Amino acid sequence: MGHRIITVSRQFGSGGREVGKRLADVLGIAYYDREIITAVAQRSGLAEEYIASISERGISAYYPITFGHTLSYPGSIIDPQVEVISEQNKLLKSLAEKSDCLIVGRCADVVLRDYDPFNLFVYADQASKIARCQSRQAAGEQLSVNELKKRMNKVDKERARYRALVTDSRWDDPAAYHLCVNTTGWNMHALVDVLAPLVKGWFEQREK
Amino acid sequence: MGHRIITVSRQFGSGGREVGKRLADVLGIAYYDREIITAVAQRSGLAEEYIASISERGISAYYPITFGHTLSYPGSIIDPQVEVISEQNKLLKSLAEKSDCLIVGRCADVVLRDYDPFNLFVYADQASKIARCQSRQAAGEQLSVNELKKRMNKVDKERARYRALVTDSRWDDPAAYHLCVNTTGWNMHALVDVLAPLVKGWFEQREK
Repeated sequence: MGHRIITVSRQFGSGGREVGKRLADVLGIAYYDREIITAVAQRSGLAEEYIASISERGISAYYPITFGHTLSYPGSIIDPQVEVISEQNKLLKSLAEKSDCLIVGRCADVVLRDYDPFNLFVYADQASKIARCQSRQAAGEQLSVNELKKRMNKVDKERARYRALVTDSRWDDPAAYHLCVNTTGWNMHALVDVLAPLVKGWFEQREK
Repeated sequence: MGHRIITVSRQFGSGGREVGKRLADVLGIAYYDREIITAVAQRSGLAEEYIASISERGISAYYPITFGHTLSYPGSIIDPQVEVISEQNKLLKSLAEKSDCLIVGRCADVVLRDYDPFNLFVYADQASKIARCQSRQAAGEQLSVNELKKRMNKVDKERARYRALVTDSRWDDPAAYHLCVNTTGWNMHALVDVLAPLVKGWFEQREK
């Protein structure tokens, strides 16, 4: 029986990352988000060492590196994102081989399909995504509602484009997922308290 | 605070009706499926009496009428389905006024939107829907896989068409729902055991 792998795809502002992080905490498994994976894959020299450190620290390790935005990317005329995808995918597979884990973003549901992951899609209605973004903005960064809507569209479009690179399934098609959850109106703690048994139950069924 | 209303939309063969019925049982609320609602609405003279009987029997009443397919429809040159929609919608609203309840089908999520329902979408992958249909066929009715696929397409297309009559939201768009659950691989008892606390939790949040 392979490791328990959970993937989280999410709309910008829906709280998908928070759901993922809390869910990993409650289930006691490793958590990786998009930024971590991209950063590590961009410096693929680091990947081995990084994975080794995760492996040593055991399955509950959360590795709080934040060098995603400070990395310089080795010069190339090819779109760095495209170039890095193959490294990322290798990295995702290494993580899935090492331990139970939860991965946010990077189309991990598609890349890891051979590992029989539980695929979660997290979304919300626009008003609630905007309210969430507003409450989370740094003091110096008060974007207007219109600016937030633009950023939201931009990020979600980028994610859709990324998905189109690895699969032809639509990003918001329920068929790609085991569960799609609308976070509108939910307190995230309360939501994860009821989601965790559902995800656990799914793995128990699979392992029967 | 209004009643707790749950609506279930589902793909043919996904087990949505079973999920709905079990969920209503576990939560101790009234259960209505598409056939009941259609039948009652077609004989709208019956509706008052029917609703009254439900009301008398209290909120856990499940009314096992099965006259859906034996009714003769009063002659009309208008599509009977179109003609009956307004009666159905009135009936849905009466049910929502009377008690907590779970309604399968009839775009109850759209019709009852003012009642702030919890909207569930139930789906599954095609192989699992076919297996489910095969295991549930009467002995005298062994359709081939191809025949089942055709029936599946036909029913789902009818449902999409019905939805298009009452709303412009796509039938399989997660945005229309609070939760979309893929029943593939699930034992229905186990699934409802983990779904029920989630739905309950959502109402508790709403009522805070």
